[in-house]
Amino acid sequence: MKLITLLTDFGLKDGNVGVMKGVIWGINPQVQIADISHNISPQNIPEASLILRRSAVYFPEGTIHTVVVDPGVGTERRPIAACLGPYYFVGPDNGVITMLHEEALNRNWKVSIIHTDVSRYWLPDISHVFHGRDIFAPVAAHLSRGVPMDRLGPSINDYILLDLPKPELSESKLKGEVIHIDHFGNLSTNIREEHLGRPSHLKVSIREHVIEGLIKTFGERPVGELVALYGSTGNLIISVVNGSAAKYLGAEMGDVVFVESSNQR
Amino acid sequence: MKLITLLTDFGLKDGNVGVMKGVIWGINPQVQIADISHNISPQNIPEASLILRRSAVYFPEGTIHTVVVDPGVGTERRPIAACLGPYYFVGPDNGVITMLHEEALNRNWKVSIIHTDVSRYWLPDISHVFHGRDIFAPVAAHLSRGVPMDRLGPSINDYILLDLPKPELSESKLKGEVIHIDHFGNLSTNIREEHLGRPSHLKVSIREHVIEGLIKTFGERPVGELVALYGSTGNLIISVVNGSAAKYLGAEMGDVVFVESSNQR
Amino acid sequence: MKLITLLTDFGLKDGNVGVMKGVIWGINPQVQIADISHNISPQNIPEASLILRRSAVYFPEGTIHTVVVDPGVGTERRPIAACLGPYYFVGPDNGVITMLHEEALNRNWKVSIIHTDVSRYWLPDISHVFHGRDIFAPVAAHLSRGVPMDRLGPSINDYILLDLPKPELSESKLKGEVIHIDHFGNLSTNIREEHLGRPSHLKVSIREHVIEGLIKTFGERPVGELVALYGSTGNLIISVVNGSAAKYLGAEMGDVVFVESSNQR
Repeated sequence: MKLITLLTDFGLKDGNVGVMKGVIWGINPQVQIADISHNISPQNIPEASLILRRSAVYFPEGTIHTVVVDPGVGTERRPIAACLGPYYFVGPDNGVITMLHEEALNRNWKVSIIHTDVSRYWLPDISHVFHGRDIFAPVAAHLSRGVPMDRLGPSINDYILLDLPKPELSESKLKGEVIHIDHFGNLSTNIREEHLGRPSHLKVSIREHVIEGLIKTFGERPVGELVALYGSTGNLIISVVNGSAAKYLGAEMGDVVFVESSNQR
Repeated sequence: MKLITLLTDFGLKDGNVGVMKGVIWGINPQVQIADISHNISPQNIPEASLILRRSAVYFPEGTIHTVVVDPGVGTERRPIAACLGPYYFVGPDNGVITMLHEEALNRNWKVSIIHTDVSRYWLPDISHVFHGRDIFAPVAAHLSRGVPMDRLGPSINDYILLDLPKPELSESKLKGEVIHIDHFGNLSTNIREEHLGRPSHLKVSIREHVIEGLIKTFGERPVGELVALYGSTGNLIISVVNGSAAKYLGAEMGDVVFVESSNQR
Repeated sequence: MKLITLLTDFGLKDGNVGVMKGVIWGINPQVQIADISHNISPQNIPEASLILRRSAVYFPEGTIHTVVVDPGVGTERRPIAACLGPYYFVGPDNGVITMLHEEALNRNWKVSIIHTDVSRYWLPDISHVFHGRDIFAPVAAHLSRGVPMDRLGPSINDYILLDLPKPELSESKLKGEVIHIDHFGNLSTNIREEHLGRPSHLKVSIREHVIEGLIKTFGERPVGELVALYGSTGNLIISVVNGSAAKYLGAEMGDVVFVESSNQR
């Protein structure tokens, strides 16, 4: 079995996700398809980049991750395909690959990127506004049938990587920011376990609130308490036990988070 | 492989879509299933009809499109199945097939419609309120196993087609209306490329706003600008670049749109 | 074919459902997966229990229902697997199985429950916050490959069942409550056909409104009328024809419903 995933900002109302599946199964009836998310905020490339990194590596080797958050559709922005270690990526060259690319470098994966400009692997008619259907779905489907990467187009090195915000030291505190707010209202920050370790003493501050210490899991504290912990993929998370930290704090994407620790490394 | 699609107004909260898949896979474990949309506005048959037409033809030949937007469930309205060229349709006889039927006539497809009243292809117990589960899912599943159409019931000719609003000429302007507002806030109108062509000069008016000319794709104009263009299936679309025309204009379904062109045909 | 279903409160935004599918297909590429719902209200175990019971039995025999509504993730609450007649259940031991368990007893199904503590059927690394990915998805996948239940861990009898509200007689009226509000705004109560039968005269009261008699299906009454009927799985439902009873009545989960009938049994 081969597996294709779909990650878009299309929403689930208009049939566009279903149409991509129709195109894929028209080319490769045997492939399995998994939705990662179609509720990325419209045109939010950094958010899609984060969700892709968090999700990609839990799929079987050979999975083709198709990501279509594409404000530049119909312009000169290139369609690309990538091989990152055991995974494939298909999507626009707009930096959505950035965080998975970083993960690939961390894991010493081989990375190769192709400008998928060979139109015989596209649909015959290309619209100006829906390349998910016309280019990315068919390219992913052909990849899943075993078409080698180098037939899809020429190799490139000047693909786009975003300069995403990194946590930085500021007056002995680590300063990060909220980069995702999930369905439950948990706040994910760009501060990760590898930045902080598990220090004995630690204070997390956000919007006039201070949280002392990290917990391991929600059940350690009473319902309604504001807590900090590492999420399931290693990011520092701010949560309310069985509640919504986003509502409790009135928090928003980009909110500043400070962490002070006694044995920061 | 055979493929069944599902298009409903059931939403994704209550498990009803999952139940239809359970029924289908109980009858044909080999069939693949794709969701087109389950977020059609409740009981909105014209909206479902549009989404069906836009989506249906991107699926492989032989796909069975199952559409359950069914305000008349449990009444005398008939369950039907249709063969429209290379595609099948299963659903209530309430006109939801109208726009795909029009497309079929445009393409000179053979059309045949069956009143699917043979209850051995239904579930054994038929509720009064959920024929998606009790009739349409099993009929689609049996079709996907190769049961011939004419075993499902008698052929009919008096199936329902809706009188959907068409654009009309009014004082040398083409007058249409907004028939869909998508996830991004783009407004689809019932004016299509075949009504207008690509005239050299053209003015689109909606709610006191006038848009001069058609663009080809969003990237031609700055973020936030109100634009008009052809959508990916040929309808005239009114959009805000990387924004929401629905919010910008306060637009609603049914809003009137005028188009003046110098070489209208 | 084997079939796994997923029922969670994860929402569809963050990629967590997709990740569970990636884990499952990494272990058993042949299994089919159906979503039942991912929009259970956060941490709402009774709601998930109801949706599970309403949905489970429409799936083919052997289906593995994976339910992750898990406020106790990371605590001592046990992961369990259950065999209930022809179906399997995988999820946390928090009572979410209660209503399906009741159904199993009604149908005289054999029930056996396992504490799935054998970590070789989990992912290698177990987070404190996402056992859907780390424990329940892999256990379901191994079950679907044919690993026998008793290899997953020891049998237990002290699993948790919730004391869910039952309808009760109060001054010759049956008193129940609203236990689910669906996508259309229909109100499901915990009063079922087996409590009431189909009496000749009957009055349903909710929030100062009285409904006389039960209808069979929506189409019997004019659009906008408040009606009562049996839903597709036998619960008494309060609806507005082609409208939302929830909005019309301002109704909420837990609202009290009284039923008076002349030949109540």
